[in-house]
Amino acid sequence: MKTPKPKDTAAGRWLSYRSEIKVFDCTIRDGGLMNNHHFEDQIVRAVYDACVAAGVDYMELGYKASRRGIKAGEYGHWKYCLEEDLRRIVGDNPTDLKLSVMADAERCDYREDIPPRKESIVDMIRVATYINQIPTALDMVKDAHDKGYETTVNLMAVSIVPDHELDEGLDMLAGSEAKVIYVVDSFGALYSEQVRYLVRKYLHYCKAAGKEVGVHMHDNQHLAYANTIEGIITGANFLDATMAGLGRGAGNCPMELLVSFLHNPKYDLRPVLECVQRSITPLRSKLLWGYDLPYLLTGMLNQHPRAAIKHKQAELDGAKSDILEFYDAMTEEAE
Amino acid sequence: MKTPKPKDTAAGRWLSYRSEIKVFDCTIRDGGLMNNHHFEDQIVRAVYDACVAAGVDYMELGYKASRRGIKAGEYGHWKYCLEEDLRRIVGDNPTDLKLSVMADAERCDYREDIPPRKESIVDMIRVATYINQIPTALDMVKDAHDKGYETTVNLMAVSIVPDHELDEGLDMLAGSEAKVIYVVDSFGALYSEQVRYLVRKYLHYCKAAGKEVGVHMHDNQHLAYANTIEGIITGANFLDATMAGLGRGAGNCPMELLVSFLHNPKYDLRPVLECVQRSITPLRSKLLWGYDLPYLLTGMLNQHPRAAIKHKQAELDGAKSDILEFYDAMTEEAE
Repeated sequence: MKTPKPKDTAAGRWLSYRSEIKVFDCTIRDGGLMNNHHFEDQIVRAVYDACVAAGVDYMELGYKASRRGIKAGEYGHWKYCLEEDLRRIVGDNPTDLKLSVMADAERCDYREDIPPRKESIVDMIRVATYINQIPTALDMVKDAHDKGYETTVNLMAVSIVPDHELDEGLDMLAGSEAKVIYVVDSFGALYSEQVRYLVRKYLHYCKAAGKEVGVHMHDNQHLAYANTIEGIITGANFLDATMAGLGRGAGNCPMELLVSFLHNPKYDLRPVLECVQRSITPLRSKLLWGYDLPYLLTGMLNQHPRAAIKHKQAELDGAKSDILEFYDAMTEEAE
Repeated sequence: MKTPKPKDTAAGRWLSYRSEIKVFDCTIRDGGLMNNHHFEDQIVRAVYDACVAAGVDYMELGYKASRRGIKAGEYGHWKYCLEEDLRRIVGDNPTDLKLSVMADAERCDYREDIPPRKESIVDMIRVATYINQIPTALDMVKDAHDKGYETTVNLMAVSIVPDHELDEGLDMLAGSEAKVIYVVDSFGALYSEQVRYLVRKYLHYCKAAGKEVGVHMHDNQHLAYANTIEGIITGANFLDATMAGLGRGAGNCPMELLVSFLHNPKYDLRPVLECVQRSITPLRSKLLWGYDLPYLLTGMLNQHPRAAIKHKQAELDGAKSDILEFYDAMTEEAE
């Protein structure tokens, strides 16, 4: 009897691994949305060291955001990721860990603020875009690609994009220079069957164009990790995660869970646990991230989590939190 | 073109619902493992009222455990579920909510302690068993069935049962009087593909025998809810959940998430949110349940969570918690 190839058998797929998979840490970038990017250097360095030691493939340090009209000190270094700030943490980055920064469509002076690749420590530019901003995103991807960077497009809030628009958008993105196109569940609204549907659709456009599909999941409905696994099963090869799930609102897929799941021996869980314990858990006294009932409700209703974040912030500031008032307000609002 | 039946289309399956699904609350029963079953009456009543108002189908109030050699006061009422204790909460239970108690194989004097159905307020006896105790479990199921109860078998720790034993066990259980056979992930060790595999296997044995398959998931790897959804997709119709996930160690599938997912209009999320906020969240000052790193590690290693529970308890008692020491101890131990 012919020995089945690993990918053809459940047991083979279970114990082996897919070497194309890349683990992408965005702790500082997504977590920065919870503290206006005011991370102390020692935290950023701890995450960097952990990513290197754990065999993580990419680390995103923050944004390249426009500095026009911004007061000094309003945001921390990691909103701008100036070269000198990056190098203070990573030196010449003499490691296998690739470095990334994110640029939001229409919120970045990318032509001026992103230097040529050979003058930068950064390896990859990820362009975050809403469906209606794709033309701008395509210009940004081309600019970064021509400067020498790897690029991705992170298509946000896909849970509210109608199918016919998504098909048109993916068709446009398939023709871009981007290496990876991401399914981004900004609202934490997707269930596993929807993840499977979307990743399959993305793969349809990306595979023919030689691109990879990525997944960036939020935990509003306690499904960030499960949906990331669903992405893996369906064929996504770029996987976003953050230490202890630190990220906007309900947070992201926890790196410790993702690394515990992957079978590639290059990944090591212990440095991730160390980073979570020493550097991330202590932040919980000031930063309020992670699954809670208000996020369940905005996720379930497929809405931006801003109302839930506001509710949680008021709770942190000492206001009485009434989930029933929040539920009634959210469900009335829908009409 | 022929209109596809709802079950044949993703959209149809997505917006419709399966009326055979039963939601099973086991807050007081599984949560009792965290406080030796010492719930105050007002908590039990709040969960009961919430289940009735939310349209939950079954509620499990506790155990029928042997009282031999037990000191008075060592355990609360909900370890024994005497008729007078049950009726103090539910009266004559003039509702559509069915009531259940659990009996562990070899830990229950079932012949004496379980009265005939017509003398009891209880509707269902769930027999919890390890694979090697199935002969005892079968006797217990027959006893309860003959007394007039609905019955289930909850086959525990299925993640460590070898396939050939599981097949033999399921074959035996298929011939029993039990209405439902449960996939019980006692260690919170299962991933979605394993849930699918197991539920399919259970369905193979159960459907031919006119039985349903149930799922009881734990959150050690943050997958209790996701795995419950996977169970639904694969065909399980009995779904265990608890208010706020209250349960042993990392806890269970949270009822608020499960009810938010189901499309059957008979289920109402609001009373669940109210119960969680008013009655369950306040317990967190004394009871330490929910996902945390030690549970991730025992789940990942497919081990009983007792070492993690001990580690968390020591933390609650003021001991310094070092996840790296725990990790090193757990991974050395494996050899």
